[in-house]
Amino acid sequence: MALNVTQKLIKDHLLSGEMNPGEEIGLKIDQTLTQDATGTMVMLELEAMGLDYAKTEASAQYVDHNLIQVDNKNPDDHLFLQSATRRFGLYYSRPGNGVSHPVHMQRLAKPGKTLLGSDSHTCANGCMGMLAMGAGGIDVAMAIAGEPFYVKMPKVWGVKLTGELPEWVSAKDVIFELLRRHDVKGGVGRVIEYYGPGLDSLSAMDRHVIANMGAELGATGTVFPSDNEIKRFLSEQDREDDWIELKADRGATYDLEEEINLSELEPLVAKPSSPGNVVPVKEIAGEPIYQSYIGSSANPGFRDFAIAAEIVKGKHIADGLSFDINPTSRQMLTDLVQEGHIASLLQAGGRLHQAGCNGCIGMGQAPATGRNSLRTTPRNFPGRSGTKEDSVFLCSPETAAASALTGVITDPRTLEMDHPKVKEPKNPTIDVNLLDEPLSEGDAKKVKLYKGPNIASIPEMDALPDELELPILLKMGDNISTDEILAGGARVLPYRSNLPEISKFTFEIVDETYYDRAMESREQGGHAVVGGFNYGQGSSREHAALAPRFLGLRVAIVKDFARIHWQNLVNFGILPVTFVNESDYDKLEQGDVLSFTNLKNNIQQGNEFTVTIKGKNESIKVRHALSGRQIDMMIKGGLINWVRSRQESNS
Amino acid sequence: MALNVTQKLIKDHLLSGEMNPGEEIGLKIDQTLTQDATGTMVMLELEAMGLDYAKTEASAQYVDHNLIQVDNKNPDDHLFLQSATRRFGLYYSRPGNGVSHPVHMQRLAKPGKTLLGSDSHTCANGCMGMLAMGAGGIDVAMAIAGEPFYVKMPKVWGVKLTGELPEWVSAKDVIFELLRRHDVKGGVGRVIEYYGPGLDSLSAMDRHVIANMGAELGATGTVFPSDNEIKRFLSEQDREDDWIELKADRGATYDLEEEINLSELEPLVAKPSSPGNVVPVKEIAGEPIYQSYIGSSANPGFRDFAIAAEIVKGKHIADGLSFDINPTSRQMLTDLVQEGHIASLLQAGGRLHQAGCNGCIGMGQAPATGRNSLRTTPRNFPGRSGTKEDSVFLCSPETAAASALTGVITDPRTLEMDHPKVKEPKNPTIDVNLLDEPLSEGDAKKVKLYKGPNIASIPEMDALPDELELPILLKMGDNISTDEILAGGARVLPYRSNLPEISKFTFEIVDETYYDRAMESREQGGHAVVGGFNYGQGSSREHAALAPRFLGLRVAIVKDFARIHWQNLVNFGILPVTFVNESDYDKLEQGDVLSFTNLKNNIQQGNEFTVTIKGKNESIKVRHALSGRQIDMMIKGGLINWVRSRQESNS
Repeated sequence: MALNVTQKLIKDHLLSGEMNPGEEIGLKIDQTLTQDATGTMVMLELEAMGLDYAKTEASAQYVDHNLIQVDNKNPDDHLFLQSATRRFGLYYSRPGNGVSHPVHMQRLAKPGKTLLGSDSHTCANGCMGMLAMGAGGIDVAMAIAGEPFYVKMPKVWGVKLTGELPEWVSAKDVIFELLRRHDVKGGVGRVIEYYGPGLDSLSAMDRHVIANMGAELGATGTVFPSDNEIKRFLSEQDREDDWIELKADRGATYDLEEEINLSELEPLVAKPSSPGNVVPVKEIAGEPIYQSYIGSSANPGFRDFAIAAEIVKGKHIADGLSFDINPTSRQMLTDLVQEGHIASLLQAGGRLHQAGCNGCIGMGQAPATGRNSLRTTPRNFPGRSGTKEDSVFLCSPETAAASALTGVITDPRTLEMDHPKVKEPKNPTIDVNLLDEPLSEGDAKKVKLYKGPNIASIPEMDALPDELELPILLKMGDNISTDEILAGGARVLPYRSNLPEISKFTFEIVDETYYDRAMESREQGGHAVVGGFNYGQGSSREHAALAPRFLGLRVAIVKDFARIHWQNLVNFGILPVTFVNESDYDKLEQGDVLSFTNLKNNIQQGNEFTVTIKGKNESIKVRHALSGRQIDMMIKGGLINWVRSRQESNS
Repeated sequence: MALNVTQKLIKDHLLSGEMNPGEEIGLKIDQTLTQDATGTMVMLELEAMGLDYAKTEASAQYVDHNLIQVDNKNPDDHLFLQSATRRFGLYYSRPGNGVSHPVHMQRLAKPGKTLLGSDSHTCANGCMGMLAMGAGGIDVAMAIAGEPFYVKMPKVWGVKLTGELPEWVSAKDVIFELLRRHDVKGGVGRVIEYYGPGLDSLSAMDRHVIANMGAELGATGTVFPSDNEIKRFLSEQDREDDWIELKADRGATYDLEEEINLSELEPLVAKPSSPGNVVPVKEIAGEPIYQSYIGSSANPGFRDFAIAAEIVKGKHIADGLSFDINPTSRQMLTDLVQEGHIASLLQAGGRLHQAGCNGCIGMGQAPATGRNSLRTTPRNFPGRSGTKEDSVFLCSPETAAASALTGVITDPRTLEMDHPKVKEPKNPTIDVNLLDEPLSEGDAKKVKLYKGPNIASIPEMDALPDELELPILLKMGDNISTDEILAGGARVLPYRSNLPEISKFTFEIVDETYYDRAMESREQGGHAVVGGFNYGQGSSREHAALAPRFLGLRVAIVKDFARIHWQNLVNFGILPVTFVNESDYDKLEQGDVLSFTNLKNNIQQGNEFTVTIKGKNESIKVRHALSGRQIDMMIKGGLINWVRSRQESNS
C-alpha cells in the first residue's frame, strides 16, 4: 500500500494498536526535548522513577524560558537541570544558547525519527521529516525511560503547496492562511502533512515556521518530507550523515485534502486575541502600534532577522516605538552579527535582547497597558504578553519591520523600496559551545543531583488502599478549569520545581480554606472532591493533578472530565470516576464521608461499583474508564510507581 | 588665590554661603540627570510644583533600570516618563538606549558645568571636568525648577597620579587602590580631585571608571581636569564646541593630599560583601566561580568590552560558567558589533543582554545560591545581586575575562598570552536615535501627562496648622532605619510612582497595624511618632518621608535624627523635633495625645517650645534645627508648596 510520510513514520515506530484514526496506538520515541519551565518536573519525575540512564537515542534539555534571574530561583533551577542531565545522560543546552526548537533542529533533529517534547511547539521539528509531538511532562519522562507514547492514531491532512511566494510574503503567511481557513481547532486529531511543488521554494527554516504553528491549529503534529533541501540544511550544519530521504510513496493518499497556492498569498495578520483571528494586513493598515517585536520559535531563522534588518537598514524606527529584537539562538546571532544585520537593527533603533523565548512566553518585553503590540510570535492569547489588558497582533518579519518604520500597522508591499534579497551566510556558524554532550553511562552514575533551596524531590506516593474513608472537601459546579485547580502566573510559577510549595496555591480560587483542610486530611487517609461537567478543562499542566495528590486527594467524582486532566489524574494515581446517575450529584454534600470498600477488586472486575455515604444510609454508583494498563498503574499509586516496579522486575 | 579645579567649579556656581569646608553653600545647577527608578517620583514632584518648563541648561531623563517588562507597570512608567519629559522640556533617553552615566557623558556632559543626578553614581561625569553630584529626587526636581542645590562645602582631596598602568592593569584597579587604602567612608565630605602626569595615559572613559566609584568612597563628587583628552573625546562625539580647558591654577593646593603611582599597581579585587574589601587578585586566585559578568557604569567603555573580547577570542569559556555581557549603551554596542568584538564574546560562550543597568542593580543575572559571581560592577553589598545569599566579587574586565576562561578567579597576568592591544574604532558611532530632544517651551505646554493605571499624582499637602492635637501612633527605640520605615525590594518597588499604594507598606516591619491607624488619623488632623537615637538611618529614599506624610504624620519627636532622613522630613513638611531633655522620652506613651498650640509662632520665634500631653497634666520641651528658609518651607507644608508659592509670586 502506498504510504504518506506520516504513515511511514508511524508504521516504523508502532509498538501497539492499529493505524485506524481514533484508535489508541503506542509509539516508540527516538528523541525527546524538554525546556526549563516543564523540564524541572520531568527531571524530578525521572528521579522518582529511579531512572538509571536515558533509553532514547537523544534527549535534550534546553534552558530558554526562565532566563530572567531576579533572585536565586531560576539560576538554582539551571544548576539542578545541569546536574540532572549529567545524571540521566541527556544533552544540556545552557541558558543563553537559544530556543529549544531551532537549536534542536540545527544540532539533533534527524529525518525518519520520532520526537516527543514537553513544549507545545515541539511540532516545529516536523519540518525535518520527523514525527514531532508536544506532550505533558510525565509523558516525556516516560519516553526518556523507554516507555511508548500512547496517542490516538491521527487523521493525516495532506496540504498540497503549489506556486511560489510573492515578494513581501513569507512562510508565516502560509500558516496564517491555514489558520484563516480553519481556525484554532481545525487541526485537532490530525497530523498536517505538507507536500507538492510549492515546497521547492521553501527552505528548511521556512518549513520550521509553518510546522511550528501547527500547534495553533491544535494538530497532533506537522510533517514535511525529508528532501534535498533538508540534505542541504544538514550538510550546512556539518551533519550530512544524519540525512535520509523520506517522501510519500507515489499514489499515497490522505484522510483529508487541502491546497494552498503560494502565489496567491498576501501579507496576513492575526488580530487580538487569537492566532485564528486572521485578516489581510491591508485591512487594518494604519492602526498605531506601541511595539514591534521580532523573534520566537515561530520566526527563528537567519532570514527572518536578516529581512527585517534589510528593511530598516539606514532608516529610523518611528518616534516612541519599542523595536524589540529577540534572537533565537547564539549560533544564529553570531551569523547575524557577522553579516552586519545586527548593526542595521541597532542603528535603526532596535533593543537587542538575549537569545531565548523572552516575551513570547511573557518573560519580558510586556507592552504598556492597552497599547498595540505587533509580534512575529505564535500566540496572542489575552494576557500572555504579561500585560493583563494587552492587544497583541501576530505577523511576519516583513510586516513587523515595515510597521516599525511607520509606527502603524503597515502592509510591507506599500513601502517605497525594492524587496530586499537576503543572502544566507556562506559558512554559517556552528556553535556547540553551550550544548553539553551527555555523559557516558558509567560517568553519569557518579553524578549527584544538585538541588538549590527551592527544589524539592517528588514525595513518595503510596499505592491505592483497598478500603478508604474520604471526606468530601469540595463540592464544585461545572467547567472547573485547571487554572482554578492550580493557577499559573508569576506568583506561582517560580515554585514549579517545588511540589510542597506550589501545592499551597491548590484550589485557592475555589476555596481558600482547602489547603489547610487538605493537609489535615492527608494525615487521615486523604479526601475526595466532587465536580460537575467538563471538570479540569483548559491548560494541560500536570501540577493540577500532582499538587492535589500531594495534599491527599484520592478520588474525584464528577459528571464528566476534560480529556487531558483525566489523563493527568490517572498518571498521578487519583481515581477519576463519574456518576452512573448524574442526579446522584445532588445527594452529595461537602463534609459527607464516603466509604470505599474492596476497591482494587472493584476497579479490576468491572467499570461500575458502589460507594456508601457514611451515616446517611445512602449509596451511589460510580463508573471508571481505565484501561487494563491504567488499572495496574492506579493500583500501584500512579505512573511513577508503575514504571519503577517495571524497572525493578526487569533488573 | 590659586584655585584647584573643584574650587573653580564651585566658585563659578556659588549662589550662597562661604567656601569654608563644612559650611552650607547654595550652588547653581546647570544640568540634571534622572533615571527611571527615581525619575518617576521626580516627574510627579515637578507636576506637584506646577513647573512650567525646565530652568536648567540641559536635563535628561534616562530609562536604564527597570527594563524587565513582565507586566504593564514598567512599560507604563516608560510612557509616563516620555510624556513628562515632553511636558517639562527634558531630554528623554528611551528604554534600551543605555545607562545614564556613559550616555550623558557622550551626548550632554560639558566641562565647567555642574550636574545633579538622582543616582548615586552621578559623580561619574566628573571625568569631564564637571562638578557632578548624586542627590535625592526632590533635590533634583528643585534644580530642574531653577532652585539652588544646598550642600556642605566639601574638602578637596587631591590625588596625584604618577607613572603609567602596567599591562593587564586598568582604571578599575586605580579606584580599587583608593578603596583599599581608605575603605567605603574614606571620601565622606570630600570631593576627590585627580591630577598629575599619570592622567596623560588615562582616556576619558578610563577616568569615567575612576570617577564613577567615587560613590563607593562616599565622596560628594569626583573631579578631573578638562584637558586635551577631553577635547579629543568631545570631538569624537562631534561636540568639540562644548570643550573648554579647565585645569588647576599653578600653585593650587588641596585640603588633603594623596599620591598613586600607577606603575606600581597590580590587578585588584573587592571580596564579598563590600567594595572596600580589596585585595590583590593573586591572593585569592583559584577560587571557583559560577559567573563572570562584564558591564555597568563602572566599566562602561568600548575598551572595557573590547579587552575582554580580545582575551577570550578563539577560546571557550569554562564548563558550566555563565558569561554575562551587559552592554552599557546601544551606541557602544554598535561599535563593538562592527569591530568584531561581540562575535568574539559570543563565540567564546557569552550571553549577550540588552543595554542597561541590568544585574548591577539586581534586575536580572542573579547568581545561584551561594555561588561566587565575579563582576565588573561597582557594588557587592549583600543581596544586591537579587540573590539573598550571594557572594559577589568586583574586578576589572581583564580579571573577569581571564577568570571566565579558567572558571576560577585568575590574575590575568598569569594567562599564557600576550597582553592584547585594543584599537578604538576610527569613526565611533554617534547614535541619537533613541535620545529625544526637549520640545520647545510652546510645544511643551500643550503636552498632557500620560498616566497608566499604576501612576498616581502626588496628593496636595496642606500647610502647617497653627494648632494640632496629635495621637502618638508609634513609640520606637533607637536606630530605626528607613528600611523599617519603608522597605525596598521587588514587592515594594513597582509602586514607586504610586504614593497611595506604596504607603501601604509604611512601618510594616515595626507595626502592621500602623497603616490602618494612620489612615484613620489622617481624617482627624494627623498623628505623631516618637523615636530614639539615630532615627532614620540608612538609605536616602525620600519615599520614607513622603509615605508617612501622605498617611498624616505631622511631627516626629526623637532623641536625634540621621542627617538625610531629617532633610527629607523637612522637605515633605513633617516637623522634626528632638527632646530638650532626653528623659522626657519616658513620659510619652503610644496612644498619648499631644497638643501643639501657636505652632507657627513657636518655630519662628526660637528653637525651643513646649508641647502638652493631653489629660496627663504634663508637658515636654522640644527643639527644632530649621534654618529660616526651612521654617518658611515647613509653614507652607513642604518644599513642593514652597516652590509653587515662589513661582506664583514670580509670575
